[in-house]
Amino acid sequence: MKKIINDPSTVVTESLRGLASAHSELLRIQEDPNVVIRADAPVAGKVAVISGGGSGHEPLHGGFVGPGMLDAAVPGAVFTSPTPDGVQAALEATAGDAGALLIVKNYTGDVLNFETAGELAAAGGLDVRSVVIDDDVAVADSTYTAGRRGVGGTVLLEKIAGAAAERGDSLDAVETVARQVIEQVRSIGVALTAPVVPHAGELSFDLAGDEIEFGIGIHGEPGRERIKAEPADDLVARMVGAIVEDLPFTSGDRVLLFTNSMGGTPLIELYLAHGIAERLLVERGITVERRLVGPYITSLEMQGISLTLLKLDDALTGLWDAPVNTPALRWRA
Amino acid sequence: MKKIINDPSTVVTESLRGLASAHSELLRIQEDPNVVIRADAPVAGKVAVISGGGSGHEPLHGGFVGPGMLDAAVPGAVFTSPTPDGVQAALEATAGDAGALLIVKNYTGDVLNFETAGELAAAGGLDVRSVVIDDDVAVADSTYTAGRRGVGGTVLLEKIAGAAAERGDSLDAVETVARQVIEQVRSIGVALTAPVVPHAGELSFDLAGDEIEFGIGIHGEPGRERIKAEPADDLVARMVGAIVEDLPFTSGDRVLLFTNSMGGTPLIELYLAHGIAERLLVERGITVERRLVGPYITSLEMQGISLTLLKLDDALTGLWDAPVNTPALRWRA
Repeated sequence: MKKIINDPSTVVTESLRGLASAHSELLRIQEDPNVVIRADAPVAGKVAVISGGGSGHEPLHGGFVGPGMLDAAVPGAVFTSPTPDGVQAALEATAGDAGALLIVKNYTGDVLNFETAGELAAAGGLDVRSVVIDDDVAVADSTYTAGRRGVGGTVLLEKIAGAAAERGDSLDAVETVARQVIEQVRSIGVALTAPVVPHAGELSFDLAGDEIEFGIGIHGEPGRERIKAEPADDLVARMVGAIVEDLPFTSGDRVLLFTNSMGGTPLIELYLAHGIAERLLVERGITVERRLVGPYITSLEMQGISLTLLKLDDALTGLWDAPVNTPALRWRA
Repeated sequence: MKKIINDPSTVVTESLRGLASAHSELLRIQEDPNVVIRADAPVAGKVAVISGGGSGHEPLHGGFVGPGMLDAAVPGAVFTSPTPDGVQAALEATAGDAGALLIVKNYTGDVLNFETAGELAAAGGLDVRSVVIDDDVAVADSTYTAGRRGVGGTVLLEKIAGAAAERGDSLDAVETVARQVIEQVRSIGVALTAPVVPHAGELSFDLAGDEIEFGIGIHGEPGRERIKAEPADDLVARMVGAIVEDLPFTSGDRVLLFTNSMGGTPLIELYLAHGIAERLLVERGITVERRLVGPYITSLEMQGISLTLLKLDDALTGLWDAPVNTPALRWRA
């Protein structure tokens, strides 16, 4: 298995250097421990919004650092939780009197290490809160965690909490809106192929030429079931059904639909799937008020997609629409 | 080989429907012949900038339709030139007294069919010009064309010509700046894997587990040579050398560096390669003044990257920086 790398042990740091040289107006990096930091951090009087996790899901999280979204991102090794010292370094670089919100995906190592760092910072007098996102409806427990996994909803959460912090909301208010997003967002993913972790150099799992893993995680960990490949109409209907019936989303709801590529799926297929999902939601009487389509939370080169639905209200829509300027998401109101 | 599609014969149209539902504020589509049209077209008094080509290179071209870039994009079947009637429909939907510029990648079918449509429109009284982009330094002739192929430079050309048209430049002026970009831009690509065309259902070519195709085209057609896989530092140096020595770019030049994913390459590798390329250019005394990093001209799920260098001056930099609002490129000055 070929990769455009020099050495598996330096791939994350070398990639971060490329990110920093490409986007020096938005962010800077610190190495050892690795942290991606908003260029103008710390921003006086602003709640710092920090996230992180294993690498290999780019642009998550480093690609979301910048005004209107994250103050810092803490990348671990590929598919490996960041260590507490990275989270501490992120807090030191970005957080002040307004406090900090840590956005943690529900994987055992992430939860533990963010918690440790948060407790140390709190002991030092900083007001730090954590929220844990667990939006994946696929499985109750998985290889990497107890409880549901944090997946596509993380992107929406980082955008909305980031917008709340950017407009000057208090830590209480940013935490409240973050918890609201977590309650109202649901996701599911499928994989057609496996990713190749640089250190391993081989496919993470075997999937036959006519099989799809339904309910896959973002590390390629198993989902609900292995199904036979089927037409996109059927596959997307299966995915929409799994999400809609979980919350549940019902007729009259307003939603944001996020159609995500797991990395290796061509955009022509991704838009095709998005069109089907949108049509199915309309048929259920659900109003698709906002959309996001693209590779935003990936699993290296894995082929597959995920769908995420967030129930909107005027306040959340306003935060979604608020200006953002990061490598991967960029718009003005 | 699995794909998220219903039927190979409807994949382009179904994908365009998804694009339109995701971005209805920016564009609309016509079907049969398929055309992607800027939502507010025709824009009175403005030169229409139109491009197109085979599908499978998304977001090129449909993802670049919107204010500040393309007025229309004409998608053919996957890896197949669009027919003249599609180009005619694009001209009818967008072009008026200010005329139209057709941006054509140098592939035999594209050149022929855009030329035919342009001649028909000219016979009807419209002022239509064409420019042909041929920025690939890899080979003199290839499977799909006589002369050099049009590749990554197309994205930069569409942005810059689109910006010139948006600010109200005359057709003469838009054509002049387009020709300047074509003269000053060079690209090269490499592939680690082959793409899978939906109709074919199998890999377009075979590449051994330790081989890289150097100088690949965007349809996976052969390049300069097949080389053994090598560290990213060496591979990127080989690529930078091929481009820089072609124009040539020399010490003191100001450039835009575009590091493109061919679709299936993870972003972690893409940024790693970008960082190396930027460092090598600096070592040559070349100033990297602007960057673009991401999957913008792809070959379905092919793993690989391309590098494009455009020599800048103040005027071109200004046009690059000008506001753009399309599905795939979006910023304000």
